Amino acid sequence: MNPLSRLVFELSKLPGIGEKSATRLAYFILNQDGAYASGLAQALLDAKTKLRYCSQCFNFSEEESCEICIDTARDRALICVVERPSDVTPLEKTGSYRGVYHVLHGLLSPMDGVGPEDLRMKELFSRLKQADVSEVIFALNPSVEGEATTLYLSRLLKPVGIKVSQVAYGIPFGGTIEFTDRQTLGKALENRTEMQK
Amino acid sequence: MNPLSRLVFELSKLPGIGEKSATRLAYFILNQDGAYASGLAQALLDAKTKLRYCSQCFNFSEEESCEICIDTARDRALICVVERPSDVTPLEKTGSYRGVYHVLHGLLSPMDGVGPEDLRMKELFSRLKQADVSEVIFALNPSVEGEATTLYLSRLLKPVGIKVSQVAYGIPFGGTIEFTDRQTLGKALENRTEMQK
Repeated sequence: MNPLSRLVFELSKLPGIGEKSATRLAYFILNQDGAYASGLAQALLDAKTKLRYCSQCFNFSEEESCEICIDTARDRALICVVERPSDVTPLEKTGSYRGVYHVLHGLLSPMDGVGPEDLRMKELFSRLKQADVSEVIFALNPSVEGEATTLYLSRLLKPVGIKVSQVAYGIPFGGTIEFTDRQTLGKALENRTEMQK
Repeated sequence: MNPLSRLVFELSKLPGIGEKSATRLAYFILNQDGAYASGLAQALLDAKTKLRYCSQCFNFSEEESCEICIDTARDRALICVVERPSDVTPLEKTGSYRGVYHVLHGLLSPMDGVGPEDLRMKELFSRLKQADVSEVIFALNPSVEGEATTLYLSRLLKPVGIKVSQVAYGIPFGGTIEFTDRQTLGKALENRTEMQK
């Protein structure tokens, strides 16, 4: 395979990048000066070699513990449970969450053979034993697996006396009633909030 | 900048890749095994260091002359003029062209200060002098600059006695009269072909 085809081939393995897009990207890269290709190549290698999982929350981290976990300004009594590392950034961007996180690295899915032992659940329980946690907030994607995982963990946590909550699911900002799917609309009705006049 | 942000930053320089897509790609890469990141990194470096311009047609090539130019089965009397290296692949995919190419690396654009000396025009004329060329086919994008470049070169080539042609511009397959823009429809009318009954 020649270098151009090889680059197109490697780029087209990326999600959402078909052969046409990969070709367009490859030609773009060839048209930039050499610093761009080597900068991207270095970033790829560094990201893969320098990042590991935080020993506490299992988000990606350069160090043993991630920046959020070592930040003394964060409230350790509040743990937000997410499915994947990529869920942390959007939650951080809200600017309204000051607790810490716990990344499960998946959701319960008996159909796919994913059980509790395949997720970072044991590690969540150890954290709850070690630290004084007052509330666990579930922020899992609204799906059958997300709901099942939230329910499963909630049932284990509640008896221990920990407050368990779930982010609200409903009509997104910018969305319309007309084009909102049945499940979301059902959730939006179920979780309606009383007007404070 | 941490390795993850750096990778997102480098990826988001790619055309059509915003910060959100770049973040999605970065997490995808982090979830693959290390071989993927290093494979892509190597492909980037190789593409940029091993490829240069073919000394004849100015398409990308690993060698002094590209695979098309050294292919003895290709008809050297037929030169197809294109704007960019990325225009060669789709023309090759038609499977119906057996001539060679010439990449101009741009189009005439006085507004942007791009004149004949900024394009590979001199090199095209040298080729015409050296080899026995019977026809030059212009396959430039249908735009003001494309038309101007075709016209400019055509006026210089015709007096030399070389047949000059241009690919047909018209309604694309899968397109509809209703949604075809004015210029295309105008061209389609202008270039109408007589029915052979």
